[in-house]
Order: sequence, then C-alpha cells, then structure tokens
Amino acid sequence: MGSSKLLGGEIRRRRLELGLSQEELATLCDLHRTYIGSVERGERNVSLQNIVSIAYALKYKPSQLMAVLDEAS
Amino acid sequence: MGSSKLLGGEIRRRRLELGLSQEELATLCDLHRTYIGSVERGERNVSLQNIVSIAYALKYKPSQLMAVLDEAS
Repeated sequence: MGSSKLLGGEIRRRRLELGLSQEELATLCDLHRTYIGSVERGERNVSLQNIVSIAYALKYKPSQLMAVLDEAS
Repeated sequence: MGSSKLLGGEIRRRRLELGLSQEELATLCDLHRTYIGSVERGERNVSLQNIVSIAYALKYKPSQLMAVLDEAS
C-alpha cells in the first residue's frame, strides 16, 4: 500500500481514537475539512508542514505519526 | 527553526555520516542533485513520498528521519 494510503489510514485511526470529527481536526491544524478527507483517503502527497501540523493536532510527535510507514520498507 | 530547516539539517548530517555526496544521495532516491541541495538548505516543503524515499536512501526508517522534528513542538 502506498505511503499516502498508509499515512491517511493512520490519521483516520488516530482521529477516531481521539473522538474527533474531520471538521474538528481540520480546525485544530488550520486546514480545510475536505483536505483532511482527501488525506485520509490517501489521495494526497502531503507536505512536511501539513504532516507536522496534523501530527500535533492528533497529539502525536511527527515521528509517531510516520512510524506507520516504517514497516512498508 | 522551521520544520524544513530541521529536516534539511538532519538529511545533510546523516548524508555526511554515511559519506555520501549530494549527487550520490540524489541518485539513490531518484531525485535531482539540486533538489537535494535545496532540501538540505531548508528551502523545500518536502512531500511525503520524497521524505520516505530520502529516508530509505539514508538507511533510515521514515520515523527516524522525522524524529528531529519531535523536539520542535
């Protein structure tokens, strides 16, 4: 599975774990809800700045969020 | 210091640690040498796919490369 799909799935999993809606997550990281939706579906080659913003909004360190990609090697 | 600068510095530090030139690193991850140079200088908001490619070329897991951003919170 591609990096974008793996990352998107983890973002969604963690968001639901925290009981956040896409709207709430988008507000926390100053991004648009539809963008969050497309990221979660793996449709975006997310930029570094957005990865960091989303990680913190999910109460994750950037490396914690990216760990989902470690096994994909 | 911004995320791009922190990540770029870590990429450069690890590249030198492995004794690679920018040209060699660029070839390993199928990117252009000038792009690697601009990433190392913190001039790029690097995409997820390129972060993953660069990490593996540096014999790092993606989370290891991103750990440099964890303390920036």
